[in-house]
Amino acid sequence: MALSKLPYKGTRDFFPPEMRQRDFLFNKMREIAELHSYEPYDGPMVEEVELYLAKSGEELINEQIYSFVDRGERKVAIRPEMTPTVARMVAQIHKEQSKPLRWYAIPNLMRYEKPQKGRLREHWQFNCDIFGAPEGLGEIEILQVATGLLRGFGATEEHFEVLLNDRRVVDAVFGQLLHLSSEQSHKLYKVIDKAKKVTAEALDKMIGEIIYQDTVKAHFKEYLKLDTFPALHSFLERHELKDAAGGFLPFTERLHASGLAKFVVYDPTIVRGLDYYTGVVFEIFDKSPDNRRAICGGGAYANLLQIFNEDPLPGVGFGLGDVTLADFLKTHGLLPTFEKPSISILVSYLDQAAEAHAFELSHSLRTLGVKTELYLGEAKPKKVFSHTERRGHRGVVMIGSNEIQTGEIEVKRIADQEKIRVKLNDPNSIKSFLE
Amino acid sequence: MALSKLPYKGTRDFFPPEMRQRDFLFNKMREIAELHSYEPYDGPMVEEVELYLAKSGEELINEQIYSFVDRGERKVAIRPEMTPTVARMVAQIHKEQSKPLRWYAIPNLMRYEKPQKGRLREHWQFNCDIFGAPEGLGEIEILQVATGLLRGFGATEEHFEVLLNDRRVVDAVFGQLLHLSSEQSHKLYKVIDKAKKVTAEALDKMIGEIIYQDTVKAHFKEYLKLDTFPALHSFLERHELKDAAGGFLPFTERLHASGLAKFVVYDPTIVRGLDYYTGVVFEIFDKSPDNRRAICGGGAYANLLQIFNEDPLPGVGFGLGDVTLADFLKTHGLLPTFEKPSISILVSYLDQAAEAHAFELSHSLRTLGVKTELYLGEAKPKKVFSHTERRGHRGVVMIGSNEIQTGEIEVKRIADQEKIRVKLNDPNSIKSFLE
Repeated sequence: MALSKLPYKGTRDFFPPEMRQRDFLFNKMREIAELHSYEPYDGPMVEEVELYLAKSGEELINEQIYSFVDRGERKVAIRPEMTPTVARMVAQIHKEQSKPLRWYAIPNLMRYEKPQKGRLREHWQFNCDIFGAPEGLGEIEILQVATGLLRGFGATEEHFEVLLNDRRVVDAVFGQLLHLSSEQSHKLYKVIDKAKKVTAEALDKMIGEIIYQDTVKAHFKEYLKLDTFPALHSFLERHELKDAAGGFLPFTERLHASGLAKFVVYDPTIVRGLDYYTGVVFEIFDKSPDNRRAICGGGAYANLLQIFNEDPLPGVGFGLGDVTLADFLKTHGLLPTFEKPSISILVSYLDQAAEAHAFELSHSLRTLGVKTELYLGEAKPKKVFSHTERRGHRGVVMIGSNEIQTGEIEVKRIADQEKIRVKLNDPNSIKSFLE
Repeated sequence: MALSKLPYKGTRDFFPPEMRQRDFLFNKMREIAELHSYEPYDGPMVEEVELYLAKSGEELINEQIYSFVDRGERKVAIRPEMTPTVARMVAQIHKEQSKPLRWYAIPNLMRYEKPQKGRLREHWQFNCDIFGAPEGLGEIEILQVATGLLRGFGATEEHFEVLLNDRRVVDAVFGQLLHLSSEQSHKLYKVIDKAKKVTAEALDKMIGEIIYQDTVKAHFKEYLKLDTFPALHSFLERHELKDAAGGFLPFTERLHASGLAKFVVYDPTIVRGLDYYTGVVFEIFDKSPDNRRAICGGGAYANLLQIFNEDPLPGVGFGLGDVTLADFLKTHGLLPTFEKPSISILVSYLDQAAEAHAFELSHSLRTLGVKTELYLGEAKPKKVFSHTERRGHRGVVMIGSNEIQTGEIEVKRIADQEKIRVKLNDPNSIKSFLE
């Protein structure tokens, strides 16, 4: 039986057109991060399992991770997310560094997923984090980077929205208003996460299994109906929860000052599951009814360094996956095609005697930064032209015995079919002609 | 016990300075590959073990690979090299594509190594391959890309050399001149690989264990002494092996025509082990006595698609690792430092009332493509200046109540301490001032 030519389940082969698309996405991520003064970092693709256990607990680890035992009896795993790695790295150096630290990475990650639209086993994730920023300001900046990326692709508030909440609000509601036990809170967090994915009846039923008293149920439903910041403000005021919500209220004012307000909507169901967040949490959603899904999620966390016995260092960050990003851009017609490479010129030669000249011209052009394809082997003009058409070169040159004799070559620009004659050893003129 | 902050054995954390260095190396790889019209590709970080077994055989697999069984009972491995993946991908599409295919990738790979200088468990490797090129010409181009990369960093024939041989020559010598059995050939390949790493006595002993007749031994030693192309030519002529060496002799003439000759040396001990090569093989060596090691290895292969039951498609390629590349560049003083980020401007504000203006100015600057760090929180001028010194911004701006009142701000250029006054909402002037 012949060997399979297909990639491993849930992973992708990136042929040149797909890879050019990926480079386009990643280059924009790098550009936007660096415009905001974020610095690049990366860690290993494999970490010891301990690190993930300490951060996420047994359940997630056993279900979702690619783990194995190495030859030195170490339990290791392919990284399923970047946060534990960045926490480990920051724990190493944060004491000697001035704050804030602003870091970004685009790692490849693997999770044990059932492959489906927008979810693969291997994906790349744009991660940005800021550590040690003043309260409320790191949150603003991280939202600027995340929305800045989508805007960098041409997306606007027509295309996406930032659904935002605060874990301090949720904790105040659960603890001080609903008086839930920690077990009930834990369960209700899971229900909230599903609130938008199920029918009203199903939601009622799930709530009823956790909360028995009608007044408490009514309060919880009142909370779930909040859909603007003013509504949230008056709700917190009415129930005397303003102090418990901490810095969230001044933060919401900064959304206006920073120009973010038009993208942001208050959403009581955004809690980011049982994750490590402790403050602002958010998800960016595609507004298209055809692709109603989260493109990005993140928030503020206070205690990520605890597992390394380090003092708390506040952080804010987000993760944004390449698969959901491409789906979002495609949905809104914001993704160019990358079928053809972008090569400036095809250099070809018609007989063996011209080969050395073609080598030399190609080399000189490349030295000037001109992307040059050399047509390998003696060429027939007809084949050269059909090749140029297929590959989309901007210009083409053919060297034969005539050209060697006269010391001049003809360069043809494909777009307008213009031609110039230049000296055989004058790559500068060719470069300017094609620019 | 606190969790370890160190990365997994044999892997690296890339903090921003190291990551900027890595980006510098990778950007040059991309640039040089694209100048030669090579197109980017990538595959998954995990492949089924079968693929590696089919290509490299049981021995290498068991010793060097990170393999495990997934939850679907598939035997998989983290990619230890890129060639099996590229062969699998080319096998998928080569029938529909015009030739040659020119592809490059910079994958992260893992091998079970004992960590030492230049050898880590995780590294990145620049891979370039050309498929379906006319005989001899793909070889020239691949050598141009490999040497072009090193030259792109400023290296010359003073710094590196290409040691080159041909498997057809070795096979002709072993079969037609030495009349070795395939078992003897196999063993002698391993000896040749070590020829330069052991003493003359040790080499003699190893040869004596495989070859018993003195005349045969003498012929082999004569072969091992060849160190120029003319010497090789007359050796092949003397022993009537010219035909068996196939296209190698015309190829060596092309080394001159293509400008490669000054980098290339004939070396009879370059055979690339028991690998899949069938024609030209080469290794690029650092010429410094302090770092006498191979930076890059590659060659021509004919039968890589066989394991997929596909027709033969000739290929030539090389791999070049990031660790040995950085060692090479460092050895010759060709690696800049990357301690500080390159941020164009620091925008700061002296009191809360100026925060919104600072948000706005930062946003406008970024929209113009100016890398802007916003100093988060109300700043003291002294702190702003020490921060700028540490981070190396090109310019700095402070907004306070005066600036809001007059609607003008002062921009200071750090390099020459020049200052200009511009309107608060005039990011264009700031941009030109800093360029």
